[in-house]
This record gives sequence, C-alpha cells and structure tokens, in this order.
Amino acid sequence: MTKIGKQSEIISLSNGTIKTISSLSHRKYRKELHLFIAEGIRVCKEALDNGWSFKYFLFDKSNVDNILINELINKIISKGGDIIGVTPDILKKISHKDNPQNVLGVIEQKQSTLPLNLYQNTFVALECIRDPGNLGTILRTMDAVGARGCILLGECTDPFSYESVRASMGAIFNINIIHSSVENFIEWKIKNKVSLIGTALKNASNYTETKWDLPFVLVMGNEQKGLSNKILSSCDQIIKMPMLGSSDSLNLAVSTGVALYESIRKNPN
Amino acid sequence: MTKIGKQSEIISLSNGTIKTISSLSHRKYRKELHLFIAEGIRVCKEALDNGWSFKYFLFDKSNVDNILINELINKIISKGGDIIGVTPDILKKISHKDNPQNVLGVIEQKQSTLPLNLYQNTFVALECIRDPGNLGTILRTMDAVGARGCILLGECTDPFSYESVRASMGAIFNINIIHSSVENFIEWKIKNKVSLIGTALKNASNYTETKWDLPFVLVMGNEQKGLSNKILSSCDQIIKMPMLGSSDSLNLAVSTGVALYESIRKNPN
Repeated sequence: MTKIGKQSEIISLSNGTIKTISSLSHRKYRKELHLFIAEGIRVCKEALDNGWSFKYFLFDKSNVDNILINELINKIISKGGDIIGVTPDILKKISHKDNPQNVLGVIEQKQSTLPLNLYQNTFVALECIRDPGNLGTILRTMDAVGARGCILLGECTDPFSYESVRASMGAIFNINIIHSSVENFIEWKIKNKVSLIGTALKNASNYTETKWDLPFVLVMGNEQKGLSNKILSSCDQIIKMPMLGSSDSLNLAVSTGVALYESIRKNPN
Repeated sequence: MTKIGKQSEIISLSNGTIKTISSLSHRKYRKELHLFIAEGIRVCKEALDNGWSFKYFLFDKSNVDNILINELINKIISKGGDIIGVTPDILKKISHKDNPQNVLGVIEQKQSTLPLNLYQNTFVALECIRDPGNLGTILRTMDAVGARGCILLGECTDPFSYESVRASMGAIFNINIIHSSVENFIEWKIKNKVSLIGTALKNASNYTETKWDLPFVLVMGNEQKGLSNKILSSCDQIIKMPMLGSSDSLNLAVSTGVALYESIRKNPN
C-alpha cells in the first residue's frame, strides 16, 4: 500500500522544515537533498500530472476553500507527499517572486540517462551553458516543438534552480533531463550512430538548407564560447543563421528556437 | 568649434558625480537626466561608432596603457565627453556585473518618432512588455535581421535599463527606439497604410503562411496578456506558431526571433 502523506501546520519562520525548504535556493542543498521548488497552482498541477513526486506541498492556510488547491492536496497526500498549511509570511520567505504564489511544491528531482533508442525524437544537447533563464526558456521551446530530451554536457547551470524552473513555465516536467560528460556523449553518439547538428560561425551551412531528418540531437554551446572543438568535430552537420547586423551571434535561447522551429517545418506532423 | 571634454580623476566613492552616475540604476533618474550606462570596451565602441554622445567615460586609472581604452578616450574627449580615471572600487560600485568591466560609459539617451516613410524596412512594436531581458534580447535579434525601429507601445520596461542594454549586446546602439501610445500608433498605421502583423492564439494563420512583404511592423504583446484587442483589431495579419506540447505560448523573445527569421527567409538579400 502506498504511504499516505501527513498534514500539518507551521506558523514559525524558524521551523526546521521551513529552514530546509529555504535552503533549496542554493544549488548545493538542491543537489544534496535531490529536491527543488516549483511555485503556483498551474505549475504544481503540471508536475503532478506528469508523475513527479512531491516531498512537501505548502499552501497559504487562509486559502482553505480554494477548490483547485484542495484537489492538489488530495492527490499529493494520496501519493505520500506531506501537506503543510503555512502563513503568507512563510511563503514569502521561501518564494523568489515579488508576488508569492499561494502554493509551493517541494519536488523530487528526476534524471534520465542517454537513451539507447532515439525513435523519431528531437533532442537538444547544451554544452556548459551558464544562464538559468536561457536553460528554462530552451526547455519551454523544446516542449513547444515536442522535443523529448535535454542533454546537459559538462558543467551547466542547474535545471532545477528557481530561475530555470520559472522560465520553463512548467515544461521542465515534460522533458527528460540527462547529464553527461562530453566524452560519454561522443562515445554514445558513435555507438548509436546518432546524428548531431551543431552551430558555429565558420564552415557552417544555412540552417534552412540543413537536413533535419529525425531523430537528431541539436547541440548548442556556451553563451560566450560556443561549442568546443571536441563537440564540433563530432557533428554531422554544422549550421548557422544569417546575421545581417553588427553582431555575430544571437541569444542562445533565440537561436535554439529558430533552429527547432525550422526542424518542425521540415518534419510536419 | 566643438567643446572638448575635461579629464579628471576621482578616488572617492562619495564624490557627487559618482553618486549621480550610481543613481542611474534607477529608472527615475535615467528619465530625469536622460542618461544611461553601458559597460565594456566593445559596447562603448559600438555606441561611439554609431554616433551616441558620451557625457562621461570612466576607466580604471591603473589601466592607462591599454591601447583600445586610449583610443576610446581620445575620440570621446574630442566630442565633448568628460573622461574620469577612477579606482576599481568605484567601477565596482557603479557596475552591475559580478566582474566589472574596466570601462563604463554614461551616454545620452536618444529617441525617435514614428517615421513618415518606412522604406523597405522591418519594424517591431512591443505592447506593454515587462521584462528588460526580453526587450534587450529582441533588440539583439532585430539587429541580426537588419530591422530598424523598435516601437514601445504603452507602459513598457525601460530600454535603457542595465538589464536591457546588457541583453542587447550593443544592438541598442543600432536600433531606433520609438515610444508611442497605442492610440497614436493606430492613427499612424491608418494614415500611412502601415502593414501590421500581430500574434495571437485564435483566428491566426501559421507564421510560415504569412505574407512578409516589406515594409511591415511585427507587433508583439505583453508576456502574460499578449496583445490588446485594440491592437489586434488593427492588424492586417494575425500569426501563430505551432505549439505541439502542453504549453500554449513561447517566450516572447523566442517567438519574436522565430517570426523575424521567417521574414528574412521570405525577403532574401
């Protein structure tokens, strides 16, 4: 039988559980506890519908009559999550929003491994990307084009940070997150004959002339440095976007979006 | 004869000029003084090359031998800008960067008005957009596709904020910024028979099927609410992007990027 969650109330900012949840604003504690925070009813519902496990679910206890919140509470408690009624002050302390949402989920992290079969899917690999807003925005776009897996290569920003989760607008619950070293990734690419499409300024063809045959992995590089030579030399195709102005690059999330939308144009339905 | 700028040194954080420059992190003072800050050699050079006027140019006075900085100093002083050698502490106080750049320009704001002739140009209008990172990123993409004017409709985030200038990566010096009320914009559209392309979820055609005949204004709405009905009912075409996932929208800068890249595909050279 599934364990059923507990229900309790906390009104003190110095409560141990509240302190633990607050600590999740630091990557170190997210990693140690394997947890992260998602804010708002819509996003928590998205997590639940996609089978993510809640460790805690905090709600403003003056909001006991909200039907949507009560639905969430019933589902989460039946799956073993602990429900904690709190004061607006506590939500405000934990929340990173100017206008804190009235619910907040503390969710177990999930990570996938490099898949053995890519089927007809789109993947995006990101090498050493730094900006959590970019990462979340890319996850949001990936969901929009039906892409399935995001492979984080090397030292990347944390996909489970507040900024990334917020920018993903719930898409993080729909995409498999995979961590890999560059070496393992290249080994996997060779072994499974995976098609890699990279981006660079030199020796690249226009993205509209690229073959976007499924499955493929679109590989995007660090915001400043782009892709490493190791990755570039493993790519099957290298693409670029026309740059008609004074700059030589686009924002990473924008160029990923332009490329992904080109791929679904070439692969209708 | 052009006035030549003064050269001085400041080592005190409590100096009046330094306090004034620091105050430019607030929109209120940027508006009052009609100034804003740009950081870094590359970005300051971009501003200068595009004819923007420097009120002050601050540099780390321990860096007197840097050729690029000396070139900038000579040009700026000949155009009437004041040069101030400062300590790293002062640059750190004013800068918003974790690793402050060794130069910092205080630049006069410029604003254009709705043009009487659009020639064969691309314009982007943004209605009540809130996120400075989105605005800067859109300016960067506009520069990349050779678009000329960004029309800010209603209450928008400040294009001259630190975050917007940074995200634009210098593109802000290449794009005409125009402020307008929605009412004046619609009047201008009717009078000059300007073609407006808006975005919405309903009654919209796929962006790949849109006529992107130049000139046009691509109109994008607020991050949460999208375009107002007032604007939508003035649009000549309404477009959407395919959304194959659980979300019904893309990040604003991403959708603007996808649309603008489609427009240059349809208008080669």
